[in-house]
Amino acid sequence: MKILLTNDDGVRAPGLAALAEAMGAIGDVFVVAPDREQSAVGHALTLHHPLRATRIEENIFAVDGTPTDCVNLGIHSLLSFKPDIVVSGINRGGNLGDDVTYSGTVSAALEATLMGIPAIAVSLVTANDGSNYSAAAAVAVKLAGIVSREGLPEDTFLNVNVPDLPEARLLPPLITTQGKRSYEGTIVDKVDPRGRSYYWIGTVDLNFRDIEGSDYFAVSRDHVSITPLHLDLTNYNSLAALKSWDLT
Amino acid sequence: MKILLTNDDGVRAPGLAALAEAMGAIGDVFVVAPDREQSAVGHALTLHHPLRATRIEENIFAVDGTPTDCVNLGIHSLLSFKPDIVVSGINRGGNLGDDVTYSGTVSAALEATLMGIPAIAVSLVTANDGSNYSAAAAVAVKLAGIVSREGLPEDTFLNVNVPDLPEARLLPPLITTQGKRSYEGTIVDKVDPRGRSYYWIGTVDLNFRDIEGSDYFAVSRDHVSITPLHLDLTNYNSLAALKSWDLT
Repeated sequence: MKILLTNDDGVRAPGLAALAEAMGAIGDVFVVAPDREQSAVGHALTLHHPLRATRIEENIFAVDGTPTDCVNLGIHSLLSFKPDIVVSGINRGGNLGDDVTYSGTVSAALEATLMGIPAIAVSLVTANDGSNYSAAAAVAVKLAGIVSREGLPEDTFLNVNVPDLPEARLLPPLITTQGKRSYEGTIVDKVDPRGRSYYWIGTVDLNFRDIEGSDYFAVSRDHVSITPLHLDLTNYNSLAALKSWDLT
Repeated sequence: MKILLTNDDGVRAPGLAALAEAMGAIGDVFVVAPDREQSAVGHALTLHHPLRATRIEENIFAVDGTPTDCVNLGIHSLLSFKPDIVVSGINRGGNLGDDVTYSGTVSAALEATLMGIPAIAVSLVTANDGSNYSAAAAVAVKLAGIVSREGLPEDTFLNVNVPDLPEARLLPPLITTQGKRSYEGTIVDKVDPRGRSYYWIGTVDLNFRDIEGSDYFAVSRDHVSITPLHLDLTNYNSLAALKSWDLT
């Protein structure tokens, strides 16, 4: 099995190292990852300037772009083959609820899915640096095996969130739905040393609704959460209501 | 009605000017838009450096960030009120099928939706500079009126694509589903004047599957396309299959 790894914390992040080491047990591992942290870049693609790739070890490339760029460049140019699976992570911090739309980690898996390659995004749910990347990596290895055996539903990838606990304390994985955060954006509004005002987007409060069966519901009870996400944002339930509008 | 406009083509784009002019007929218009083009940035949020906002006219601000940043900054800091509706666009070029996940225009509407504000993303389907922004703006004005009257389903915004045709030649709006492109990424792989190789993500072929009822199906037949999109990426149809996996 040929495995392409990427992330959004950058090529030197401990979560990626733990993932690469564990994945080595089940296949040939190739890494194409951003040369620096690229959190909250969403599904951004670099169109307006060229990208550079640096080979920093035999099978490890650092790219000066987003996780989505890395998957693109890896598959279309840097690798001489199409990988059997793409695994993105292990992200420092959960990717739960609505936050998945901001996530570079999740977007890398989405990009692979667009290319028809099975993909898994893996995140360690932690508010600090994270301690148990190897436990999360073991979960990823197991899931990669299942995915390569069972396949994935069309246009669908897995968003996996693992509580920051030692392997023995993790409760069994639950198949979940994308949760909801009670959104609270904050802007820090200050004046710089030259007297000009500036704004800084603040951290949002970690405040998810406790919806039964959701990703947050699972991880807050020490379960691994596995959410099948797809590329189709259509709200099918609303089609009928909208078709009743007078649009003429 | 207080209307916040943004886009991803930048504050000086003709699509935004046409939208602002037309929206003035139904409410007070405020613009918070990127100071330069921000295409394909997806739902990116600027976390690692401060943002600057420049007031370039009474109700027009230019921000050195992404469309998502603009909505955040506008609502949490620059405006002294919560707008009744956010309209993003008019984008130069369609936002159809899977491409919505890359779109700054669509992501701005998504961000407003996260904040509980009704939102519409509007794009002019054109491969060049676009000619009929005023026709698309008229569609947007009409839809904003309907949305303020009828409301939108929970967590849902409208992704509107308008063929680049004069108003008289536009066929009636259809409520559609998000389409699918036959994905063909390309990477241009070259050597720079200093002898170092670089990569440039190429343009993808405009090649959508002709799925009945989809956004592409509508616009390719000269209809305005209105797709209700939501924030939930869960593939509900796949939950049962995944729950049958042996995960222990």
